[in-house]
Amino acid sequence: MDEPTNDAAGTTPGAVDAAAYDKLKKEKDEVYNQLLRTTADFQNSMRRAISETDAAVDRARGDVYRQIIPVIDHFDTALTANVTSDDGKQLFEGVRIVRDELLKVLKQSGVERVEPKKGDAFDPHSHEAMMRQPAEGVPTNHVTMTFSPGYTFKGRTLRPAKVAVAP
Amino acid sequence: MDEPTNDAAGTTPGAVDAAAYDKLKKEKDEVYNQLLRTTADFQNSMRRAISETDAAVDRARGDVYRQIIPVIDHFDTALTANVTSDDGKQLFEGVRIVRDELLKVLKQSGVERVEPKKGDAFDPHSHEAMMRQPAEGVPTNHVTMTFSPGYTFKGRTLRPAKVAVAP
Repeated sequence: MDEPTNDAAGTTPGAVDAAAYDKLKKEKDEVYNQLLRTTADFQNSMRRAISETDAAVDRARGDVYRQIIPVIDHFDTALTANVTSDDGKQLFEGVRIVRDELLKVLKQSGVERVEPKKGDAFDPHSHEAMMRQPAEGVPTNHVTMTFSPGYTFKGRTLRPAKVAVAP
Repeated sequence: MDEPTNDAAGTTPGAVDAAAYDKLKKEKDEVYNQLLRTTADFQNSMRRAISETDAAVDRARGDVYRQIIPVIDHFDTALTANVTSDDGKQLFEGVRIVRDELLKVLKQSGVERVEPKKGDAFDPHSHEAMMRQPAEGVPTNHVTMTFSPGYTFKGRTLRPAKVAVAP
C-alpha cells in the first residue's frame, strides 16, 4: 500500500494529493467488492455442501441396500424348495419369516420391491425387458412375465425387475 | 462512504484533508482484514464440510447395518433348529449359505462380527456384561460365555456382544 506523500507539490501541510486519495478510495472499493463476492461464494458453497451431504448419505445408503439384494435373491431361491417333512416345513416357515423381516426393514427405510404383475405397463425406469413374449390378453409393451423382482430406493432404481414384454 | 471534501479549509485545490485520507485508509484496512478473516473462515468451513460429509456417510451406512443385525439374529436362531429329514437338511444348508453370504457382504463393507471366546479379555467397547459367572481357568474380568454376537463398523460398535464375565 502506498503511503500518502504529504509533501507533494501543490499541497499544503495537513493535506494530501487528491490523486492519492482517489487511488486509495478505488483500492478500498475493490477490496470491499472482493469481500462481497467472497461472502456470497461462502454462503453458496455452504448451501451446496449441505445438499451434497444429503445426496452422499442417500447414495451411501442406496449402495448398502444394493449389496443386500443378492441376499434376498438367495432367500427367494431357498423359498422355492419343495419341502414335505415336518422339520423341513418348520424351517421353511422360519426362513419365510426372516425374509419378510428383512423386506420389512428395507421397506421402512424407503426400499421398495418392484414385482410387476402380468398385464402391468412396462416401465423403463424400474423394469428391464429380457425378452419379447406374447400372452393372451396382454397388450403391446405390457409385462407378460416377471423373472426377478427389482428394487428402488427413494425413487431411484437399485436394480430393475427383469421381465418379459408383449410384442 | 464519505466523499472527500476538496474545498475543506486549509487545503489547496487538487488536495484533500489529511484526516479524511487517514480515515479512508483505516476503513480500507478494516475491510481488508475482514476479507482475510472471511477467506480463512471459508477455507476452514469447506474443509470441515468435507470431513463432515465423510462422517455422515459412515453414520448412514452404520445405521443401515445396525438395522440388519436383527435379521442375522433371526438367521442364527433358525440355524439352531434340529433338522433330521433330507429335505430339511437341504434347506438348512441353503439357509446357512444365505446367512454366510450376508455376513460376507457385511464383512467386505467393514462390518465385523464380534464373537468373544471363553477366556478372552472383557472389552468394554465391544462387549456388554450381562452377568457375572465363574468358570474354571478363566481369570477375573475375562469372558466365560457369549450369549449373542456383537457387530462393529469401522471400529465403531453397532451392537456389543452380550457376554458373561468371570467375577
